[in-house]
Amino acid sequence: MKILVIVPILPRSGKGKLRSSDSAKRYVRPDTQVDSINIEYGPASIESVYDDTMAAPFVVRKAEWAEKNGYDAVVVSCMMDPGVKAAREAVDIPVIGPREACLNIASILGSNPKTILPRGIPVLQMHDDPEKTYQALKKAAEKAIQEGAEALVMGCTALSGIAERLNKELSVPVLENQGTALKVAEMLVDLKVTHSKLTYPKPSEKKRILPG
Amino acid sequence: MKILVIVPILPRSGKGKLRSSDSAKRYVRPDTQVDSINIEYGPASIESVYDDTMAAPFVVRKAEWAEKNGYDAVVVSCMMDPGVKAAREAVDIPVIGPREACLNIASILGSNPKTILPRGIPVLQMHDDPEKTYQALKKAAEKAIQEGAEALVMGCTALSGIAERLNKELSVPVLENQGTALKVAEMLVDLKVTHSKLTYPKPSEKKRILPG
Amino acid sequence: MKILVIVPILPRSGKGKLRSSDSAKRYVRPDTQVDSINIEYGPASIESVYDDTMAAPFVVRKAEWAEKNGYDAVVVSCMMDPGVKAAREAVDIPVIGPREACLNIASILGSNPKTILPRGIPVLQMHDDPEKTYQALKKAAEKAIQEGAEALVMGCTALSGIAERLNKELSVPVLENQGTALKVAEMLVDLKVTHSKLTYPKPSEKKRILPG
Amino acid sequence: MKILVIVPILPRSGKGKLRSSDSAKRYVRPDTQVDSINIEYGPASIESVYDDTMAAPFVVRKAEWAEKNGYDAVVVSCMMDPGVKAAREAVDIPVIGPREACLNIASILGSNPKTILPRGIPVLQMHDDPEKTYQALKKAAEKAIQEGAEALVMGCTALSGIAERLNKELSVPVLENQGTALKVAEMLVDLKVTHSKLTYPKPSEKKRILPG
Amino acid sequence: MKILVIVPILPRSGKGKLRSSDSAKRYVRPDTQVDSINIEYGPASIESVYDDTMAAPFVVRKAEWAEKNGYDAVVVSCMMDPGVKAAREAVDIPVIGPREACLNIASILGSNPKTILPRGIPVLQMHDDPEKTYQALKKAAEKAIQEGAEALVMGCTALSGIAERLNKELSVPVLENQGTALKVAEMLVDLKVTHSKLTYPKPSEKKRILPG
Amino acid sequence: MKILVIVPILPRSGKGKLRSSDSAKRYVRPDTQVDSINIEYGPASIESVYDDTMAAPFVVRKAEWAEKNGYDAVVVSCMMDPGVKAAREAVDIPVIGPREACLNIASILGSNPKTILPRGIPVLQMHDDPEKTYQALKKAAEKAIQEGAEALVMGCTALSGIAERLNKELSVPVLENQGTALKVAEMLVDLKVTHSKLTYPKPSEKKRILPG
Repeated sequence: MKILVIVPILPRSGKGKLRSSDSAKRYVRPDTQVDSINIEYGPASIESVYDDTMAAPFVVRKAEWAEKNGYDAVVVSCMMDPGVKAAREAVDIPVIGPREACLNIASILGSNPKTILPRGIPVLQMHDDPEKTYQALKKAAEKAIQEGAEALVMGCTALSGIAERLNKELSVPVLENQGTALKVAEMLVDLKVTHSKLTYPKPSEKKRILPG
Repeated sequence: MKILVIVPILPRSGKGKLRSSDSAKRYVRPDTQVDSINIEYGPASIESVYDDTMAAPFVVRKAEWAEKNGYDAVVVSCMMDPGVKAAREAVDIPVIGPREACLNIASILGSNPKTILPRGIPVLQMHDDPEKTYQALKKAAEKAIQEGAEALVMGCTALSGIAERLNKELSVPVLENQGTALKVAEMLVDLKVTHSKLTYPKPSEKKRILPG
Repeated sequence: MKILVIVPILPRSGKGKLRSSDSAKRYVRPDTQVDSINIEYGPASIESVYDDTMAAPFVVRKAEWAEKNGYDAVVVSCMMDPGVKAAREAVDIPVIGPREACLNIASILGSNPKTILPRGIPVLQMHDDPEKTYQALKKAAEKAIQEGAEALVMGCTALSGIAERLNKELSVPVLENQGTALKVAEMLVDLKVTHSKLTYPKPSEKKRILPG
Repeated sequence: MKILVIVPILPRSGKGKLRSSDSAKRYVRPDTQVDSINIEYGPASIESVYDDTMAAPFVVRKAEWAEKNGYDAVVVSCMMDPGVKAAREAVDIPVIGPREACLNIASILGSNPKTILPRGIPVLQMHDDPEKTYQALKKAAEKAIQEGAEALVMGCTALSGIAERLNKELSVPVLENQGTALKVAEMLVDLKVTHSKLTYPKPSEKKRILPG
Repeated sequence: MKILVIVPILPRSGKGKLRSSDSAKRYVRPDTQVDSINIEYGPASIESVYDDTMAAPFVVRKAEWAEKNGYDAVVVSCMMDPGVKAAREAVDIPVIGPREACLNIASILGSNPKTILPRGIPVLQMHDDPEKTYQALKKAAEKAIQEGAEALVMGCTALSGIAERLNKELSVPVLENQGTALKVAEMLVDLKVTHSKLTYPKPSEKKRILPG
Repeated sequence: MKILVIVPILPRSGKGKLRSSDSAKRYVRPDTQVDSINIEYGPASIESVYDDTMAAPFVVRKAEWAEKNGYDAVVVSCMMDPGVKAAREAVDIPVIGPREACLNIASILGSNPKTILPRGIPVLQMHDDPEKTYQALKKAAEKAIQEGAEALVMGCTALSGIAERLNKELSVPVLENQGTALKVAEMLVDLKVTHSKLTYPKPSEKKRILPG
């Protein structure tokens, strides 16, 4: 099985090319190949509907490319699920957005699932001081629990890998988003199902010009 | 007052430039100037989430251009409201999508408002045989009423100008979409309000590359 | 165009007669005539369902009078919208209640719109100490924002004219209620639509005795 | 215990005075006295929001009279519950509307409870041809069941006494409205509870003029 | 009329046999006979879905026994309503759960009804120190009111008899659960209705083995 | 990884013992061991809330047994999810019900997911005439699609293995229930998360007697 992770932001330096996704390997089966690729146009990070809108057309293009190149499923690596619905119309393979996947799975774990973000830390700075990010995240988690959340989901795919530590220190489950999206993609391929063409009908042929 | 109507599709032939919107004049006050402009990239018509996604970034660009060029409000001329929420984040003037505007106003007119489309007629063919389009639209209206709609809204801005005839032949009000969106835009400017920055926060500065 | 503002409370001293509405002029077009009239029976102010119930039949009567006397639309000047639905059944012209109009328009401005009232100040005392009223209103606005409101609406038509100052001092839009209702009424007349007779059917003829 | 049934329509001929309610006796305990009284102003029957609005102030007046005259609870005999909420604000005894009471009790009996009315028969003609009324009612019941109702409620208090026959001929329970409202009123008095003053606060003192 | 109260917990000492319910007498008519009986298997108290699940099959058995022995209705004496829906499928007489009955009746009394429990006091200790239980309950009531509840319901049938005192000391009505359930049961029998067989269809015959 | 499939019905003949689940093997990884076991008491099939209630305590017991015997997760093989919530309170490993798992996953595939059952064929007869069952199922699927379903889920675990054929002949995805539940269980173990103890708190120690 081959899954393409579309990273819906501009590449930092040389990371833009198609590459094997190391961070994904721990979540999927040994026989599942996971590659990842950045979009060529769009924003450097996604933190608004504005960013989401700027990234979406280029996510769709990568999904079309993935289908043509034999991938069995696509994961869009961003908790705003940019371009996911449009991509489902365009292709016949599963297209998984981590927000939708995580909120569905988290609802099996507990009532009132909420996503959490380290308040005041922009996406592009999350890796600068991991401990500060972790503490901000933990604080956000405790606030969410106090306000009624009984299951949590990491609010940004840039936070991958932190869930495990948080899980140990909190009384509620915290779902890793990237991993969950990959597992759902793998599951749908194994179950041999894809999205409904009643919900996501194939767009009709017409003139469309997307630059770049 | 100056309102810009953004037509979120590729121009047919030479219609792409900024121009005075003749069809809009009958809806607004004499002292309200309405111009219209097509987007430069995107689809030839919008009939899917896919088309919406392809058009949205270029709608946002035109909204930014409108604000810089002294327009008081923007109307996006498509019943899928492409790019409307992203544009509200980007600019400080009102950005009106006809779907949202019409469904809100229609709810004042009657219960369970629904949009209607002439079934089986693609957007680009709606003007080929106006009578056929009208009859298909009327049939859709009657079906919607039978299924519980008590107020109707034209489902495509390409249908502008037909509402009046339909209103005469049906027992429920039919709202003209383009006209309603223009009136709501004019009203918000008159009332000196614009969108909440809590709901539509200004996107942070960052690297973003949109080709074209 | 002629719009009648029905003030659904007893007149103070000699204000009960039909009169030109000065406060309305700043909201509508120069060619729109706005008159206002009080009801002849009912409460001195409306602050409960009890007051609303006592005013409603007399609002309906005034709406019937307005239609017979050539008015194109009616606005009921109270944020409880007393008698609005019954009046829509009785007449064929638009009948606008500011609550419904404002909550619909505010939802275009921001998420979770809420009405605000100056706590602890009865309607009949709102004009006694305008600064005190303003400060109480601002406090209510800040509380509403803290509790999640992202757009606000003046909670009483007696507060007309204060929205503008509040708009300048707050981070969310505050909708003027009387003005919004007038603009929506003017818009519906311009768009040549009125309420659905499926939702608001004409009451059948029968014996009805309303004293006074 | 003394319960007053307020009949919120004009009396036919001499029936307007306070009288012992014979039809109510079969539903309540022998030691519960049930009187009934018509309103003095309002419509001859209630079939619209318009009628409801015209009746409501006079229902409230009778509820106030009932409390002053030692009644323990009030039932408003109409499935539109006219004036019920205003009356709860005005008095401290339970005020029961049959619509609310029946829909609550019917939800204990089955899913998706619906009210049924004999289509095409005005309220004032329901007693002209009882068999015709019954057949129209049965037809309405069967249609409601086909559309998903699993419990039914008589849609007009003028239909009192028919539920029993319908219950025998249908597969779902049919709730008698007048009887149910009386039983709920009796129950609340027995349980020594009345409406919340947070939900139905006492209206403040002010000038109010209701003619008649 | 004969009503059986099923106490869905293990009997303490010799209380397990069928007995006349003294505590129920104050709620029902003198001619209504109320007996009560414990289940033979299950938990000592019900404080979790786990307890509810362990009790439910044995509640259903007692309901079947009640119907065979001439009871007109059944009340399950626990605010989790264990086995109520299954029992309605099994028998043709009304089966009343106090949670459902109370939340329906409380919604007539005020908005946003909530159940209250004395925090930190397990069911089996509620009778150890009645004053402590009462104070904990009152505190829970005040918290619920502060959070928006406008009507309250006792959260455990073991708290029967305390509602009256609480009613006197609070500004919102507090519904006694056991009494309310009994009154609703009596009412349904009087009204000659029972649960819908569309909602609660008779289970088909098949092999079923329940030990004990 | 070891998953226990609890079959919540009485064993047919000798099938009641713990056994390796052959039908499950095609869904899980080669290194995942799937065993299955029937409950010892309860119904022969589950087609009502009554059956569900009779099976639930014995499902919980098996889940407790599974945890004690080193299983990593439990799947309850019935589309009514009997005992699932109680079992989650009792144990610390994931407990998956196919209804919840399938409706969550199906919502990723398409709008308005519905379960389908071959109308008129009791569970115990589904295997008697597979072609008849298939045709009845297909008819149910077509009806569901006509009524608005855009994704489907097999309505009974006894239908396992039919989804694939149905998927080929219909325009919407049909989710295999048993397989989906197993994949979700495997996924949660891989992701190292389990149910929230805020949502499913550990039941307190107390006397509980369950016969058998």
